[in-house]
Amino acid sequence: MSEISPSAGYTQTLRCELQQQPGTLGRLTSAIGEAGGDLEALEIVGHRKGIVIRDVSVMARDEAHARQIAAAARAVAGVEVVGVTDRIFEQHRNGKISVRSNIRVRTRDDLAMAYTPGVGRVSQAIADDAELVWDYTIRGNAVAVLTDGTAVLGLGDIGPEAALPVMEGKALLFKEFADIDAFPICVNASSADELVAVGRAIAPTFGGINLEDIASPRCFEVEDRLKEALDIPVFHDDQHGTAVVVMAALTNAARSVGKSLEQLRIVMLGMGAAGVACVELLNHAGVADIIGCDRRGIIHRGRDDLDDVKRAVANKTNRGHRTGDTAEAFRDADVFIGLSGPNTVDPDWVAAMGDPAIVFALANPVPEVMPERLPPNVAVVATGRSDYPNQINNVLVFPGMFRGLLDARATRVDLDTERAAAEALADIVTDDELSSDYVIPSPFDERVVPAIARAVRSQVTGAGAARKDNIA
Amino acid sequence: MSEISPSAGYTQTLRCELQQQPGTLGRLTSAIGEAGGDLEALEIVGHRKGIVIRDVSVMARDEAHARQIAAAARAVAGVEVVGVTDRIFEQHRNGKISVRSNIRVRTRDDLAMAYTPGVGRVSQAIADDAELVWDYTIRGNAVAVLTDGTAVLGLGDIGPEAALPVMEGKALLFKEFADIDAFPICVNASSADELVAVGRAIAPTFGGINLEDIASPRCFEVEDRLKEALDIPVFHDDQHGTAVVVMAALTNAARSVGKSLEQLRIVMLGMGAAGVACVELLNHAGVADIIGCDRRGIIHRGRDDLDDVKRAVANKTNRGHRTGDTAEAFRDADVFIGLSGPNTVDPDWVAAMGDPAIVFALANPVPEVMPERLPPNVAVVATGRSDYPNQINNVLVFPGMFRGLLDARATRVDLDTERAAAEALADIVTDDELSSDYVIPSPFDERVVPAIARAVRSQVTGAGAARKDNIA
Repeated sequence: MSEISPSAGYTQTLRCELQQQPGTLGRLTSAIGEAGGDLEALEIVGHRKGIVIRDVSVMARDEAHARQIAAAARAVAGVEVVGVTDRIFEQHRNGKISVRSNIRVRTRDDLAMAYTPGVGRVSQAIADDAELVWDYTIRGNAVAVLTDGTAVLGLGDIGPEAALPVMEGKALLFKEFADIDAFPICVNASSADELVAVGRAIAPTFGGINLEDIASPRCFEVEDRLKEALDIPVFHDDQHGTAVVVMAALTNAARSVGKSLEQLRIVMLGMGAAGVACVELLNHAGVADIIGCDRRGIIHRGRDDLDDVKRAVANKTNRGHRTGDTAEAFRDADVFIGLSGPNTVDPDWVAAMGDPAIVFALANPVPEVMPERLPPNVAVVATGRSDYPNQINNVLVFPGMFRGLLDARATRVDLDTERAAAEALADIVTDDELSSDYVIPSPFDERVVPAIARAVRSQVTGAGAARKDNIA
Repeated sequence: MSEISPSAGYTQTLRCELQQQPGTLGRLTSAIGEAGGDLEALEIVGHRKGIVIRDVSVMARDEAHARQIAAAARAVAGVEVVGVTDRIFEQHRNGKISVRSNIRVRTRDDLAMAYTPGVGRVSQAIADDAELVWDYTIRGNAVAVLTDGTAVLGLGDIGPEAALPVMEGKALLFKEFADIDAFPICVNASSADELVAVGRAIAPTFGGINLEDIASPRCFEVEDRLKEALDIPVFHDDQHGTAVVVMAALTNAARSVGKSLEQLRIVMLGMGAAGVACVELLNHAGVADIIGCDRRGIIHRGRDDLDDVKRAVANKTNRGHRTGDTAEAFRDADVFIGLSGPNTVDPDWVAAMGDPAIVFALANPVPEVMPERLPPNVAVVATGRSDYPNQINNVLVFPGMFRGLLDARATRVDLDTERAAAEALADIVTDDELSSDYVIPSPFDERVVPAIARAVRSQVTGAGAARKDNIA
C-alpha cells in the first residue's frame, strides 16, 4: 500500500477544536502524517475560550484510508474532531457545469430579438440554407458526451444516472481546456441499436459526438455505425484518445533511446477497447511488429477462442506467428504497453525484454507493474498516474482533438486524424526538453491544445473532410 | 399594414456617412420615419474630413419593410449608406447559450478532484443510492428542450437544425427567467415512436423535459407516452404553457367584469395543440360551457370529419349540442378565444357576443381580429403581441412552472399542477392593479416566476409527486 500516494481525489476536511496549549497542533499534524495522510491545507476558522477551531484538509489514498486518518486525528489528546466533510462531494454538489446565457433578456425588445419574432428569421434562414446552422447556433462549438453507462471508469456497468458525474466532468474538461460547449447525454439504452438510434437522433444539435465509457464490444459497433450514419465526427475517447496519447508518448520514448517508432517490437497486454485502438493506430503509423496478449496469452490466428474484435487483432499483429503465454511475448520486445489490470506483469518478464526497454504500464490506479519494481534494462516508464513521470492521460488529447474538429467543422475523424494529433502532441516536446522522464507534456502545458487543434484542422482540411476550409 | 408596429425582431443597423452640413441628419431621420421605421439608436462611430460616420439602428415591420427603409436612407441627399447589418443575425451568431464550468481546473489536484479519481467516488455513491443523482449532478436543475422541428413557430416542419435557434432561445429564457440549465435537443425523428424513444433514452440526464414545436397530432401521442414512461415531468409548452396563461388571463378578465371563470360561455376557434389544451384545462377548472370551432365550424358529436383529438373535444364541450358555422358559435358568448390564424374573425361576429364581451385573439403576429376593429361590446382584449395591452405570452409560465417542478424534484406534472400555476399567475394582479388593460402581468414582473414556482411546488408536494418535500 505504501507504493500508492495520497490523492486529492480523496480529500477530507476535518473541523478540529484544538486546546490552546503548546504542542497540540504539532501532535495533530504528526498523527495525520503517521497515518499516511498528506496535509493539504490548514485554516483557522474560529476561536472560543481556550480553543482554536481549525479546518484541516487531508488527502488520503482511498476511502478506508481517509477513515483511518480521521480516527487518528480523533485519538490526539487536546483535539476534538467536530466535523468531517468530504471535499469531493462538496465540490460536485449540484453538478460541475451549468448553462450560461450569451444574451441578456431584460426588456420586451430583448425578447423580440432573442426569441420571437427575431429568432424565426434565423430559423427560416437555416431552413433555406442548412449550412447556416454552423454560423448562427451553438452547433459549431457543441459536443455531446454520450454514454450508456456500461463501462464507467473502473466501476463497470453502473448505468446512466451514476455515469452522469463522469460525463459532466468530461464536459467540464472540454470547457476548461478547449472552451468547447460539451453537454452530457447519459442514456437508457439496452442495446447497440438503441444507442446508435439515440446518437443519430441527437446529432443535429452537435458538431461532434464524444462516446464515453461504453462497454466492449458494444462500443465498436456503436462507433462504426454512428460514423457511417453521421456527417459529424464521432470519437470514442476511451479508444482513440488513449491510442493518440500512447502513440505520442511512444514516439518520444523511442526518440529518447535513439529509435524510430517503426523499428519497435511491441508487446501489448489487454485487448479491450483501448488496446485494440492502440493496435490499429500504431499499425497505421507504420509499426509492423506488435504482439497482442489477453489473459490467455499471445493472440494468434491459431486460437479458436477469439471474438471478432480479437480475430481482427490477430490478423493485424504477430507477423512472426508466435504462440505461448504472455511471459513468452515479452522476450526480446522493445516496448511493453499494458492496458489491462493491476499487477498483471511479473518484473522478471520485463527483465527478458531488450535493453533499453520501454514500459507503459497504464492500468489505473494500480499499474501492471509498479515502476519501483522494474529491472535495470528499462529506460523509459510511463503510467496513468500523476505521481510518476510520464503520465498518459486522455485529457492531453480530446480537448485539442475536438477543438480542431470543430474549428474545421469536420465531417469525420479517422486514423489519419489521430496520427496527425499524436505527431503534433509528440512534437511539443523539444529535443532540449526530451528525457526518459519527460516523453509527454503535462495536460496543463499551454502548447498542447493549440498544437493538436492546428494539426487536426489541417489534416481534416487536407483530407476534404472540413466544411470550413477558407479561414486560417 | 399600418396596423402592425415595427418590432425589435426586425432591427437593422445602417452605417451611414453623412456630409457635415446642417440638416443632413434631420433629412435622414425624417426619411426613415416617413418610411415607417422606428429609430432605435443613433451612434457616432467615426469622422472623416467633412464626413460624420453614424450607425443608425432602425426597427422595421418585416424584412421587406427593412429593405424599404434602407432604400429610403440611401435616397437622402448628403448621406451614403456604406453598410447594412442585421442586428438579429449578429446577436444569434455562434448561438445564444454556452456551457459554463462551475469548477476551475488548473492543477493536477484540481483534476483529481473534479475528474478521476474523485469523480469515481461520486459515481459509486449514486450507483449505491440512485437518489443522490439529484444532489451531486446537474440533473436537479437540468431541462431538455426537446423537439423534432416539425412545427416551429409559424414556420412549420423546418427540421431539427433550423429549429435549433428557437430551442436555444427557449433555453436562454429558462436561464434568464428562472436560472434553469436547459439544453436544446433537436432530433431527427421521423415518427412518434422515434421521438418517444429519444425522450425515454435521454431522461436520466434531466430533471424535466420541455417538449416544443412538435406537430399535432404527434405531439399528443409523444407527450402521453413519455408521461407514462418517465418519472420526471414532461410538459409540452405549446399546449400547456398556453393553456395556463390563457386560464390566468381569462380568470382576471372575468374578474374585471365582475364574473367568475365558471360562469363564462366560451367560444374557441382553432383546435390545434394549444386549443385542445385550453379546452382541457378550462374544463378541469370548472368551465362547463365551451364551444370549440375549427375551420369547418362548430365541433359537435354529429360531425363525421373529426379525428380522435377533435372527437375528444366534441365529447367534452358543446353541452347544448349546437351546430353551424363559427359565426353562429359567437352568438351570445361571453368569451372568444382564438388560437387559429390571422384575420379569421369578422368583427360582426363579435358584435353578436354578449356585453361585456372578452376577446382573446391570440394568433401571432397577426391576430384573428385586430383590436382596433372590435365593436363596443368588447370590454377586455388580449393578444399575443407586445404592442397591445394584455399580451398572452408563454414566457409567463414555463420558467416558473419548471422552477417549481425542479425545486420539488417532481415526478410528474398534470392538470392540477397547471391549474395551480394559472391561479398563482392570476393572483399576482391585485385588485388595485386589475383593469381591462391589465389582466395579466408582464413577463418582466419579478413576482411571476417565484409565485408560480411556489404554487407548483406546493401542489406537486401535496399530490405526492415530489421527491423532495422536506425543504421549505
